[in-house]
Amino acid sequence: MKVLITGGGGFLGYRLAQAIAARGSLTGRDGTAQKVAGISLLDTAFPANVDARFKCITGDLSAPGVIDQALDRDTDAVFHLAAVVSGGAEADFDLGMRVNLDGTRMLLEACRKLAAPPRLVFASSVAAFGGDLPPVLDDSTTPNPQTSYGMQKVVGEYLVTDYTRKGFIDGRSLRLPTIVVRPGKPNLAASSFASGIIREPLNGEPSALPVPDTTGVWLLSPGKVIDAFIHAHELPNSAWGVNRVVNLPGITVTVREMLAALGRVAGAATAARVTYQPDERIQKIVKTWPAGFRTDRALALGFKADSDFEDVVREYVKDQGLRI
Amino acid sequence: MKVLITGGGGFLGYRLAQAIAARGSLTGRDGTAQKVAGISLLDTAFPANVDARFKCITGDLSAPGVIDQALDRDTDAVFHLAAVVSGGAEADFDLGMRVNLDGTRMLLEACRKLAAPPRLVFASSVAAFGGDLPPVLDDSTTPNPQTSYGMQKVVGEYLVTDYTRKGFIDGRSLRLPTIVVRPGKPNLAASSFASGIIREPLNGEPSALPVPDTTGVWLLSPGKVIDAFIHAHELPNSAWGVNRVVNLPGITVTVREMLAALGRVAGAATAARVTYQPDERIQKIVKTWPAGFRTDRALALGFKADSDFEDVVREYVKDQGLRI
Repeated sequence: MKVLITGGGGFLGYRLAQAIAARGSLTGRDGTAQKVAGISLLDTAFPANVDARFKCITGDLSAPGVIDQALDRDTDAVFHLAAVVSGGAEADFDLGMRVNLDGTRMLLEACRKLAAPPRLVFASSVAAFGGDLPPVLDDSTTPNPQTSYGMQKVVGEYLVTDYTRKGFIDGRSLRLPTIVVRPGKPNLAASSFASGIIREPLNGEPSALPVPDTTGVWLLSPGKVIDAFIHAHELPNSAWGVNRVVNLPGITVTVREMLAALGRVAGAATAARVTYQPDERIQKIVKTWPAGFRTDRALALGFKADSDFEDVVREYVKDQGLRI
Repeated sequence: MKVLITGGGGFLGYRLAQAIAARGSLTGRDGTAQKVAGISLLDTAFPANVDARFKCITGDLSAPGVIDQALDRDTDAVFHLAAVVSGGAEADFDLGMRVNLDGTRMLLEACRKLAAPPRLVFASSVAAFGGDLPPVLDDSTTPNPQTSYGMQKVVGEYLVTDYTRKGFIDGRSLRLPTIVVRPGKPNLAASSFASGIIREPLNGEPSALPVPDTTGVWLLSPGKVIDAFIHAHELPNSAWGVNRVVNLPGITVTVREMLAALGRVAGAATAARVTYQPDERIQKIVKTWPAGFRTDRALALGFKADSDFEDVVREYVKDQGLRI
């Protein structure tokens, strides 16, 4: 069992690699557990001191030859997480098209040429939805993205589904909620604040909130999304049928509720490090994202959400070894 | 007002060119009627004796430089009909991806570089739908194509919508029912029989029916779809809002009802020229297509269906100057 993770140098991709390595096996084409013989990570940059068990390929997914370096002829499992994030793809349309659309297509074409069709788990996004939305979305809601990033993710889903129908791959697409709390630095994602308002105060730093605190966020913790990637891979082909896309479960929390949970975990003085500094560009993107979901199909397939946001904050504190 | 029609050598594209020429004007960006100063047709082949008013560019949409020959810097209106048809794109996946997906994207990129964003009407298809469908589809039904052609059309819709949102074009996508009766020869479209079972008997020839006569077809006549293309162009930007795609209205007719109408128009002996010759490949594709629709949004926007199938047959007989 050989595994490739695109975006494997990023926070989620690297954590997924560690989780698969710790697990030691994944389900193969024949439905039995197969020992993981190798994990390749493709990304433009990697953390310092990468685990020596991982083979790292440094490069742009959409640059000629890079994917060929990352895929072996007998790669069995591909987790496709690499992407230019929402704010980045909106600011630079051509870059988003090249990496998010062309890069995905190049990866699918390379998978098609392997010895046998690999299982492929594609990280799509709740940014697929937008426009005139019902208050609560469900599995029948039609994607109508209001960002180029969301459009590129939806197009990726349709490609994954058709490549699967044609038998070129065995694909499964997951629409990820906003992942909170991400460690590290703020990034260009319009949702970056949702982690920043927890992470920075816990580090003793101020944090700017670009949206009103009544804003609802549909979110999932890093731990649960890693579980979801692996669960999506492990489900048999027959569990998916002709519909290869699923909205992952999550919880809806307003910014105000997030800050209250932070206060309960780390004290009111910590939560008070967040100040409202309106940013119209961010607000314009975030307000197109839905906050309320029914995810019956995902729950029936065995995907799981977090229990509440206080647990999400406590998980982050524990993962980071913070003292509060 | 300069106009480009891709697929302009095909039956619908050429008929659209004639209709626009006869009309003499289209609505410009400022909302006023503008005299049509030129109509360019891009296609791989053209009818003999093309009307001298049309500028014909012979080439493959997806070949380098071809689109640039077809677009002027001040082109105002683009009707994008060129495509590899459903059966063709299913038989040759790479060809369908190149023409239907890459070709559409190249056209949109070329439009983005024009002096001002053109209005663009994209011919999408009812083949967008498939999989686990309700008996009657409506404007909220999520596309889940079960052919590569359908996938490529849906991806084209998402591209047209995002290019519009970004202000690169002013796009509108129409999901066409099966167009019946097409003149000429059978083609590789899986729906080719729906015209063949009317056209061939009227020409005194036998016709093979590849699907059971209980098969329902969601259809629109050539005359009405030409009206729809022009109407889609003429509607103001504001009529579309953030949703740039519409399911065109049509009528649902079973093959049995189609043959009964043919019998009433041309006699039972004519209808008897159709014989059932099951074709599994065609059946497999056609059975994924929906037959029942509610098209509230299209009707509210002013699009119109045919009154009944007998009228469709009579229109064809009249258009072709047939004696029956």
